[in-house]
Amino acid sequence: MKNLDTLFYPDSIAVIGAGEASLKWGSIIITNILDGGFKGRVYPVSSSRDTIYGLKAYKSVTEIPERVDLAYIATPASTVMGILADCAGKDIRNVVVISSGFSEAGAGGVLIEKQLIDFAAGHSINIVGPNTMGMSNLRWGLHGTGAHPRPAIGGISIIAQSGNVGNQIMLWAELEKIGISKFVGSGNEAVLKVEDFLEYFNRDADTRVILLYLEGVDDGRRFLDIAKSTCLKKPVIALKAGRTEGGGRAAHSHTGAMAGSFNIFEAVMKQTGITIAMNPTELLELAAVFDSFPLPRGNRVGIITLGGGWGVITADECEERGLDLPPLPESLKRLFDSKLPAFWSRSNPVDLVGQPDHAFFKEAIEVMVSSDAYDAIIVLGLIGAAKFGIRPIKSAHRMGFLPNEELRRYENMSREIDKQILDVILALMSKYDKPIYPVSLAAFPDDEMTYTKEGSRYKAIVYKTPEMAALCLSKQYRYRRFLQTHGK
Amino acid sequence: MKNLDTLFYPDSIAVIGAGEASLKWGSIIITNILDGGFKGRVYPVSSSRDTIYGLKAYKSVTEIPERVDLAYIATPASTVMGILADCAGKDIRNVVVISSGFSEAGAGGVLIEKQLIDFAAGHSINIVGPNTMGMSNLRWGLHGTGAHPRPAIGGISIIAQSGNVGNQIMLWAELEKIGISKFVGSGNEAVLKVEDFLEYFNRDADTRVILLYLEGVDDGRRFLDIAKSTCLKKPVIALKAGRTEGGGRAAHSHTGAMAGSFNIFEAVMKQTGITIAMNPTELLELAAVFDSFPLPRGNRVGIITLGGGWGVITADECEERGLDLPPLPESLKRLFDSKLPAFWSRSNPVDLVGQPDHAFFKEAIEVMVSSDAYDAIIVLGLIGAAKFGIRPIKSAHRMGFLPNEELRRYENMSREIDKQILDVILALMSKYDKPIYPVSLAAFPDDEMTYTKEGSRYKAIVYKTPEMAALCLSKQYRYRRFLQTHGK
Repeated sequence: MKNLDTLFYPDSIAVIGAGEASLKWGSIIITNILDGGFKGRVYPVSSSRDTIYGLKAYKSVTEIPERVDLAYIATPASTVMGILADCAGKDIRNVVVISSGFSEAGAGGVLIEKQLIDFAAGHSINIVGPNTMGMSNLRWGLHGTGAHPRPAIGGISIIAQSGNVGNQIMLWAELEKIGISKFVGSGNEAVLKVEDFLEYFNRDADTRVILLYLEGVDDGRRFLDIAKSTCLKKPVIALKAGRTEGGGRAAHSHTGAMAGSFNIFEAVMKQTGITIAMNPTELLELAAVFDSFPLPRGNRVGIITLGGGWGVITADECEERGLDLPPLPESLKRLFDSKLPAFWSRSNPVDLVGQPDHAFFKEAIEVMVSSDAYDAIIVLGLIGAAKFGIRPIKSAHRMGFLPNEELRRYENMSREIDKQILDVILALMSKYDKPIYPVSLAAFPDDEMTYTKEGSRYKAIVYKTPEMAALCLSKQYRYRRFLQTHGK
Repeated sequence: MKNLDTLFYPDSIAVIGAGEASLKWGSIIITNILDGGFKGRVYPVSSSRDTIYGLKAYKSVTEIPERVDLAYIATPASTVMGILADCAGKDIRNVVVISSGFSEAGAGGVLIEKQLIDFAAGHSINIVGPNTMGMSNLRWGLHGTGAHPRPAIGGISIIAQSGNVGNQIMLWAELEKIGISKFVGSGNEAVLKVEDFLEYFNRDADTRVILLYLEGVDDGRRFLDIAKSTCLKKPVIALKAGRTEGGGRAAHSHTGAMAGSFNIFEAVMKQTGITIAMNPTELLELAAVFDSFPLPRGNRVGIITLGGGWGVITADECEERGLDLPPLPESLKRLFDSKLPAFWSRSNPVDLVGQPDHAFFKEAIEVMVSSDAYDAIIVLGLIGAAKFGIRPIKSAHRMGFLPNEELRRYENMSREIDKQILDVILALMSKYDKPIYPVSLAAFPDDEMTYTKEGSRYKAIVYKTPEMAALCLSKQYRYRRFLQTHGK
């Protein structure tokens, strides 16, 4: 196993080809590292400038007076072998080669890449790339990618065979407040392969969930072995792109991945315990749920809804994904009988028929989650109901018939109610060790979609649609079954 | 066929059970109508107040001195028959019964609903509901629902068998800037059925696309006949909830819809030309695309992408949905050869390998859309690229190494570039009468996701994910085929 500790946790970084406030790669990378707040030392290396962002710039890494743990190279491909030799001379054992123009760029590039591979082997250098968007470790304060996403720090580590796709997933994570641990765009994988990163993240204590964007792997057997032993320890969520003929052709011309054998490979992947996502949105959402909620012990789902229609829709979504909707036990019917109008559904989904009684919302969730009849609960429309409900109040205010302070009182109450329900959900998930999936049907663009509290064992994700909640629940259940099958 | 003109285009409205700035239904409805800017006369009817929002309140509709075209009733079920008699006395022919407590609420309610049906038949009154969230006609300035969504005015008319689901779709439309024409929550459908609204919207010139949320229909034969003749004229997008056993049970306890026969019904639905959505998100997105883009003449898709990975993902999505990705004709290869680095893919998807040349973006789109080889174009990451690309500039600015005016220049340029690309897309859609689906992979929460220009024949929708673009394209293609099969 490769030791990648210093790669991901460097104390000092050189950026070769660095620039200042321009749109060239070397400038973009060092800007990201500095603006990202890296705590260690940063050494710009530039052939043309004496200072960069107020830091002394060196002509070569060999001139840097102190030890360098990691180098980013962002200069033309033709210069890379010379720079690598300098790096070796300076005993730099970790290099991220951002530069393109290698095997992805035709015969000339293939040749340089071969030299790079041989050199790395001869000098025991860890190389990420070439042709990569970079590498980041958020908890370490290291933002070392071409794109500048700023997600929260969390438990998801990303390995992406397309830096572009990976970085845009990071951007989505930022927008949805999903926490990320590490990111690596594996690029051409000349030296370090997707399997090496998988193996490293398997043992990395900061990584709770691994997110993979795959187009192809060189050594399928090794990948599957590592994937399986990893899945027994932590969830791995993967999107395998190039699963159709057209997609496979596109993958081949993108990263040279061979598609042919992949239909079989994908089938085998499932047996390793990998959770398969069908698109990048699912990929991120699945990673988030595994990093947030406890696993359900079985597939029996109880649904609470504020409106009947959403209950019907969600029941369909659950059943089509292999989840069960057991009827309401008699004891629960009696509990709800005293709280709901005489004509309530008396079945699962429990339709609260629009009763805007927020204290009862919380009670209803506990009634369901505490029942032995259910392994997981989906809560529809309770979060967001207050915010949706406040709109008539806002209309009256706009018309001048409601004092400002009354509107503010409603607004505060509406925020408070959502927060209280989320607090109850967090507390109940810990108390019963069961997942509760809240779906807000009135999610506004600026809503926080994840919620946690100091000291809370779990996080709450507020889903925007019932189909995503049902998908996440079903995949968590499948992963739980995989673990059970293997005695976990 | 029922004449619903005055129902949807009333000049005067009475609201029975009206209130002021409270969270009771009667208040919520009249607040919505007034705040929504209804241009006609509004008459509050209240047993307890003399004025409501500064308007004289009447004790009964019979006291209103002028003609009333439409009445909303929001009083307890037990009072509704008496009020209906008053309405008939006042010759009000259109009534929306918001009140619940009818057939959905057990035996007593069934009885009142029966009386209501008989009364409506005897007095030729159009009744929406009871137990409905209301009815709106946005172009007419009529917002007559319990929820207060404020979507833009557009060509989509909504019929929802769950007011809750329908209204939340309206809220999503508001958030995504998707234009709505009319909305009706059909409620218990005591008098006016989903088929009646479908028939009306078929002939309504303001309605270009019909969006249906269905749990069940009483007269399947009639529904299918009307649906088919409507689909030959304009697209109908439907979500049939209750398609599984669990969902069917839930639908039965929600609206009394019978699920058993529906598997067959759903299969038949497809033959009528209805576009089937699997969940509410799809339902709205599909309605939007049909109201925005031309139909593709075939299923041959050309893809342009700024990053290889997204091309692979989108190729998979297209092929899995029955779309074709024909190779790039030689003439197009030659055109791109002169513009792209030597190692470009020379295939479809066309990978622009990150070339940030915005003039070339526009050229590349025209090269593809003008080719006889393709019926539709998907454009990945060109919109939003400038905004994503500006982040390193922002980082440099935060660090104090870029003057404010430089940042502003970049920001304006970034906005301008996206706008220019959208203008080109609108112009090319008109010129070639082919759809172009832009996907922004860097959509921020406050981004406008639809774009149009005065005088433009089409609108542009900016998709947030490639899977939604591929889904919309495939459904538009299927609808085109339906029309062709029927000689259209």
